[in-house]
Amino acid sequence: MSMKKIIKVKDIEIGNGKVTIQTMLSKKTTLVEENLADIIALKNAGCHIVRVAVSNDDEVVALRKICEKSVLPIVADIQFDYKMAIASIEAGASKIRINPSNIGDNSKVELICKKAKEYCIPIRVGVNMGSLDSEVEAKYGRTALGLAKSCIKCAELLESFDFFDIVLSVKASSVKTMVEACKILHKSTDYPLHIGVTEAGTKETGVIKNAVGIGALLLEDIGDTIRISLSAEPIEEVFASRRLLKSLNLLQGATVVSCPTCSRCNYDLFTFAKEIEEMTFDIKQNLHIAVMGCVVNGIGEGKDADIGIAGGGDNNFVIFQQGKVLKTVTSDNYKEEFLRLINEKIME
Amino acid sequence: MSMKKIIKVKDIEIGNGKVTIQTMLSKKTTLVEENLADIIALKNAGCHIVRVAVSNDDEVVALRKICEKSVLPIVADIQFDYKMAIASIEAGASKIRINPSNIGDNSKVELICKKAKEYCIPIRVGVNMGSLDSEVEAKYGRTALGLAKSCIKCAELLESFDFFDIVLSVKASSVKTMVEACKILHKSTDYPLHIGVTEAGTKETGVIKNAVGIGALLLEDIGDTIRISLSAEPIEEVFASRRLLKSLNLLQGATVVSCPTCSRCNYDLFTFAKEIEEMTFDIKQNLHIAVMGCVVNGIGEGKDADIGIAGGGDNNFVIFQQGKVLKTVTSDNYKEEFLRLINEKIME
Repeated sequence: MSMKKIIKVKDIEIGNGKVTIQTMLSKKTTLVEENLADIIALKNAGCHIVRVAVSNDDEVVALRKICEKSVLPIVADIQFDYKMAIASIEAGASKIRINPSNIGDNSKVELICKKAKEYCIPIRVGVNMGSLDSEVEAKYGRTALGLAKSCIKCAELLESFDFFDIVLSVKASSVKTMVEACKILHKSTDYPLHIGVTEAGTKETGVIKNAVGIGALLLEDIGDTIRISLSAEPIEEVFASRRLLKSLNLLQGATVVSCPTCSRCNYDLFTFAKEIEEMTFDIKQNLHIAVMGCVVNGIGEGKDADIGIAGGGDNNFVIFQQGKVLKTVTSDNYKEEFLRLINEKIME
Repeated sequence: MSMKKIIKVKDIEIGNGKVTIQTMLSKKTTLVEENLADIIALKNAGCHIVRVAVSNDDEVVALRKICEKSVLPIVADIQFDYKMAIASIEAGASKIRINPSNIGDNSKVELICKKAKEYCIPIRVGVNMGSLDSEVEAKYGRTALGLAKSCIKCAELLESFDFFDIVLSVKASSVKTMVEACKILHKSTDYPLHIGVTEAGTKETGVIKNAVGIGALLLEDIGDTIRISLSAEPIEEVFASRRLLKSLNLLQGATVVSCPTCSRCNYDLFTFAKEIEEMTFDIKQNLHIAVMGCVVNGIGEGKDADIGIAGGGDNNFVIFQQGKVLKTVTSDNYKEEFLRLINEKIME
């Protein structure tokens, strides 16, 4: 990631080594007040950049109002009409996303580039499997290579207009295709990459597809900004993105490890682990918490935890730090005591 | 995967190229009837092998009853006591899982190997970050290499007793550590690998951690059998495993792609996509279904779908096949008609 060009979207940098989280508004763009409220909630949930679809003049008017008051940088998503792209830039978008293959004449793409340069905003070249460049598709087929080549061709078109303020993305609903295409892009260019699996499906399936695809890339230090696409509310995309980044130590915060299902456990660990996770989800500093079923394994397996608890049978619980017992508590007070000690840790 | 040794767990092969799904019973082992009912439900949900903890004589008695009637092969999970391992083998377990470092004297491990050989069942050498071999830990630290070396040392101990019917696993709650350790094992041995992230946390966090870790390995053809460890019911682990394998085309079945959040959508796509996914979740043949928000993008992006539907505005919906329009339906009958056509596809 560190070798990538840094692209600025208002005050957010893409490509500086810190992976940013994006989502897209789900309400009609014209519902200005509702969308502004959503943007505040999304920022509080951990989102860095928000995208909004702009398809007609009414939406351009709404976009201007949203951009004026938004607490997050706004990316205007343009499907076909170059006039919408130009109007969105003039309306205050901090970045636009286009697929140049869908815009038509190259002269129209050139006009968009000129306007973006005038307003000093970047363009994301976003190519999806559903909208490949037709010549490239004819040559390489609907493959990962075709997807990557399509995107590179579009970026070269922008470069031919002396425009280099570019973020790239190649998305597919096939995890394998998307991963392979991103790896090709990563090798071929130094523009930062926006990564994600598109049309990933319902929340339950989509989270898994995105975790596999985005995760595999981030494990190899590929990817600078992510969107987890779900058929679910945008805030769910943001929460899932945070969990994903935390799982790879790419985002600070509390993490709760807890035992899987096992008949050795003597208390309602599932509920307790969930409660602890919810109560510590918004902590901004690293804190490794373990919620374990039994003492036998629990303390050993929770060795790396800053603080942990393990059920001990006979209504006893043991609270431990880095593998060493701190104190024993009972089923009457284990929750309060554990939370009190977590808070102490946070205050340290 | 194809280069791995094939290990048989009753009628299930590990290492034959087909990735199998495992989970662990969550009820007390002594609750025989409840566990047998759970095993039936787990099999119906798509589970191939089930593990059960055996820690005392009562549980050995229960294990025997479970093994006699179980519809899935049973793996006995042993923590420390070699007598429990031997008794579990005699009680009919189809495989046992031990961490030789936890068993004590090598002579005890030898007795387990002899008994397993007598009963022709395999042993999984399962090493977790919480129970590394102490010499290896002193030399390599609590690292991925230490984890892999610990496991290899244990496997060599079994080999020294002329025992080679082995499956290996190295688990950690750190995704990166587990992925790295599995890659080392994959290069170093030809025993099949059981892979998973342990103590992965709550359902929501744990699914993501496992999808990243297991997914990254499976993308590189590493891993022969999986368990997604969650602080949730075993059946949730099985459902998540199926979604994960489907996302990498490692399991046949229906897949539903559907649009992410976008203001262009004119109907309640989230609910509809979820309904379609639930209704087709158990289909055993490959069927690629697309549920799209709008016609503009939908048909193009759903090009690879066997059958798809896209909202068209004005209460119209378009049903399409491989990118070509099949028919137009209205908001009054789109659900029934789409389901009818999906059923036709299945019957073909």
